[in-house]
Amino acid sequence: MVRRALFIGRFQPPHKGHLEVFKGILKEADELIVGIGSAQESHTLENPFTAGERMLMLGRALAEEGIETSRVHIVPIPDVNNNALWVSHVLSYSPPFSVVYTGNPLVRRLFREAGYEVRTFPLYNRKDYMGTKIRERMVRGKKWEHLVPPAVVKVVEEIDGVGRMRDLSQSDRLLGPRKTGT
Amino acid sequence: MVRRALFIGRFQPPHKGHLEVFKGILKEADELIVGIGSAQESHTLENPFTAGERMLMLGRALAEEGIETSRVHIVPIPDVNNNALWVSHVLSYSPPFSVVYTGNPLVRRLFREAGYEVRTFPLYNRKDYMGTKIRERMVRGKKWEHLVPPAVVKVVEEIDGVGRMRDLSQSDRLLGPRKTGT
Amino acid sequence: MVRRALFIGRFQPPHKGHLEVFKGILKEADELIVGIGSAQESHTLENPFTAGERMLMLGRALAEEGIETSRVHIVPIPDVNNNALWVSHVLSYSPPFSVVYTGNPLVRRLFREAGYEVRTFPLYNRKDYMGTKIRERMVRGKKWEHLVPPAVVKVVEEIDGVGRMRDLSQSDRLLGPRKTGT
Amino acid sequence: MVRRALFIGRFQPPHKGHLEVFKGILKEADELIVGIGSAQESHTLENPFTAGERMLMLGRALAEEGIETSRVHIVPIPDVNNNALWVSHVLSYSPPFSVVYTGNPLVRRLFREAGYEVRTFPLYNRKDYMGTKIRERMVRGKKWEHLVPPAVVKVVEEIDGVGRMRDLSQSDRLLGPRKTGT
Amino acid sequence: MVRRALFIGRFQPPHKGHLEVFKGILKEADELIVGIGSAQESHTLENPFTAGERMLMLGRALAEEGIETSRVHIVPIPDVNNNALWVSHVLSYSPPFSVVYTGNPLVRRLFREAGYEVRTFPLYNRKDYMGTKIRERMVRGKKWEHLVPPAVVKVVEEIDGVGRMRDLSQSDRLLGPRKTGT
Amino acid sequence: MVRRALFIGRFQPPHKGHLEVFKGILKEADELIVGIGSAQESHTLENPFTAGERMLMLGRALAEEGIETSRVHIVPIPDVNNNALWVSHVLSYSPPFSVVYTGNPLVRRLFREAGYEVRTFPLYNRKDYMGTKIRERMVRGKKWEHLVPPAVVKVVEEIDGVGRMRDLSQSDRLLGPRKTGT
Repeated sequence: MVRRALFIGRFQPPHKGHLEVFKGILKEADELIVGIGSAQESHTLENPFTAGERMLMLGRALAEEGIETSRVHIVPIPDVNNNALWVSHVLSYSPPFSVVYTGNPLVRRLFREAGYEVRTFPLYNRKDYMGTKIRERMVRGKKWEHLVPPAVVKVVEEIDGVGRMRDLSQSDRLLGPRKTGT
Repeated sequence: MVRRALFIGRFQPPHKGHLEVFKGILKEADELIVGIGSAQESHTLENPFTAGERMLMLGRALAEEGIETSRVHIVPIPDVNNNALWVSHVLSYSPPFSVVYTGNPLVRRLFREAGYEVRTFPLYNRKDYMGTKIRERMVRGKKWEHLVPPAVVKVVEEIDGVGRMRDLSQSDRLLGPRKTGT
Repeated sequence: MVRRALFIGRFQPPHKGHLEVFKGILKEADELIVGIGSAQESHTLENPFTAGERMLMLGRALAEEGIETSRVHIVPIPDVNNNALWVSHVLSYSPPFSVVYTGNPLVRRLFREAGYEVRTFPLYNRKDYMGTKIRERMVRGKKWEHLVPPAVVKVVEEIDGVGRMRDLSQSDRLLGPRKTGT
Repeated sequence: MVRRALFIGRFQPPHKGHLEVFKGILKEADELIVGIGSAQESHTLENPFTAGERMLMLGRALAEEGIETSRVHIVPIPDVNNNALWVSHVLSYSPPFSVVYTGNPLVRRLFREAGYEVRTFPLYNRKDYMGTKIRERMVRGKKWEHLVPPAVVKVVEEIDGVGRMRDLSQSDRLLGPRKTGT
Repeated sequence: MVRRALFIGRFQPPHKGHLEVFKGILKEADELIVGIGSAQESHTLENPFTAGERMLMLGRALAEEGIETSRVHIVPIPDVNNNALWVSHVLSYSPPFSVVYTGNPLVRRLFREAGYEVRTFPLYNRKDYMGTKIRERMVRGKKWEHLVPPAVVKVVEEIDGVGRMRDLSQSDRLLGPRKTGT
Repeated sequence: MVRRALFIGRFQPPHKGHLEVFKGILKEADELIVGIGSAQESHTLENPFTAGERMLMLGRALAEEGIETSRVHIVPIPDVNNNALWVSHVLSYSPPFSVVYTGNPLVRRLFREAGYEVRTFPLYNRKDYMGTKIRERMVRGKKWEHLVPPAVVKVVEEIDGVGRMRDLSQSDRLLGPRKTGT
């Protein structure tokens, strides 16, 4: 039987650490499901890119790296805002899987309470590759391109991702378009 | 006519202070409606327990204390996220009542604008019994059992509530399962 | 260990058939959880009564019948509008249970897919006691009081339930307050 | 004190009957609040026009008719899908009012349960002016322009409203864009 | 530049007609985006399969047919229940595209109002391949396997899809798990 | 053709700076659409007033200032909580417009990505007129009346707005009625 593994991230943006994790998981499982969390979010400093943009970045980065796309499923997963429903929600959006890889204690807890096998991947270099760091570098005009796969650099350029982030950074941290007034 | 009083809390978890309030209200009213607020929340540091778990804790604690269960209605109330609708929302979930007990100024304001009698209960010892303090003690491995009724201790043990809270506390404060990636 | 059974209905309104089911279940289980489905609905022909009104009807009918209220949990459950999430949703609102009683094939299917024991109660007299029939009788001015417990008759009278239903029946079947125009 | 009256419709589209009602109400009240119900709906056969389009139609028709715009408030009101919350919802979107005009029994019931004065306007000629009839005429290529104010005809033309409705009518009645597949 | 085409369906289940359409589009475009509409729906007669199950069926059927998976993006798209927002919603979930293929007049209208090129694919044999027909055949025990790709037959068997549909068909058409009562 | 300009704020409350902006825009455009953002919010320190109250304040202040009400459309706009949908959402609630005035970088970004002309109004004296400052002054019992139009002072008095804000300020900043317990 096909052994599928789930890994969920927000991929804002996908970075080299993610690719290492993907390759590691594909050594242990037949197929990998990459869940794009907070799929409905975009155009915020925390979540600058749409689900479609993130899907494009991931797809191209996987191809560039020579990972067989037929072994990977990319699945956008919108938030459900209710922890008690979250595992069922993920199950309904994803092809069936038998193991979950995560470093997040809450994700681990929820899947374990639901009876799933949860593995923690040997830690990739969190310090260098954190999405938060990359987004900060984009906003501050620092070098960020070396931290992500070349394919991601290209998509970010095509959609003027850095320009978008700088515009977002000028807004008050708490202001959204729905909180525009003075 | 039956005089019913409403008291709303989140009961994360129910503590001895709550029981004192319940007994006080039942001296002044025929029946007590215990509203479990934020019913849809669970598995966060602020709201670790599900509505069903809280209902079980309350029911057993009331029985243990010898309070007549026929005089108490326990009603889970999900959030409505809109203050202008909140009073109507509570009214639709609850048996009819004629008086509200609360120490919360916003709750007092909203029910008063809606024409309800609102009473503030003589303050029980807030400092010792605050839910926040109890949850912190659970996470930090301090003694918390003396602050809640024995029945609550038992339910927390049955559902490994302290283990759940410690797992949650390892997650970044702002991360939910839907904000899992890096 | 306590053996709890779940039974979910909309109870628009509770009728004598429901009471028979409750008594039957309480012979087989220690405690009964009565889930009030579609809790957020009210003031429609299909769902005329609020969750709070239904909770009051159920509570009084149980007391009147001499059923120990300490063995029964009444839990309003709002709709989640997503079948894949429904079982998790019910689990989070309800005290833990180990068996589900239902005559509804979808409810049976969903709980069975989730690994629960599901039992079908020996059919009470559906023809006479269907909620739909009772609501139709209320609207058409026919006798309905003999089909429900006396306590329910009393609550319906207190809230002018029949008057409400007749008003609702004058609206176009598809019109809600939000579909008011011409 | 200013006496304001509320009238809620969907105005799909506004027609001559509505204008008669507005003029009638303005003889009895100082100001009129015109609530545009189901504001979030558009591009369906039942609700072809957006709230913004309907607001434009109403504003121009009122001006054309010589009604003082300073005496009229046009307020889009999205659905709340919960009858128990509907009155509070309308109250929060609308300037304060003391009387409600409606022919809809459910609207009448809900506002009366909330303690409001509700009046039924002497029936304008429903048969000729029903919104449903006008929409059917648009779809079937029949004459409809005589049933609505000239300003409405002009807006419908500007936005190709009839073309939109004919396109919608070719879709299966139950299909929305979200139900597109076969 | 890469020319991407969007096709949206519900794929309940994917059938041979869909594959013909996919192959036709891939002759005219570089890449195909297959949007799975009503992604959040499952376990109803109209939408029996989860988004994850449908994604699995599509992925395997494409592979079986020898279509290069690197040229196809499969994107689950939950409903947004608001036609005015639907195009923006699809855009945010999908990689960028420049042309939309659809036979649905509403989808065509909405994308055209948004300025997109919309093409109607030469009609595949709708009569034989309609999803509705296939679901009816499943429920009634008729032969349906010849209408879908072999890979879809296999997934339906793995998840006991026919058993699920028959259970669903025993429920009253209008009953969901949230409308369970009697 | 009529040239309409959009300006969106939360107007908690409308102040003299807003009126200056309105007059400036009306020199450059034929008609002004005043969007009331976060329309569904009220009874919080950040958003104390309902959409209806804000609409009343704006309407009276415009009349008092001698601005032709026939040239101004006041449109409450509820939040959509999704930046990718926000522009479409505003478009559906508002009469058509061809230019947007804003000082908010995110609003500017979103409308520019959607192809709209966006102008930044020469900055009115932000320091004195910020809504936040006015709300703080209300809470702290400082003079605030000179910062808003006289008509706004009058409405705030009629609805006991300052009393409401002081009550709200006694609640924990993060507590809403739905977070009431201890």
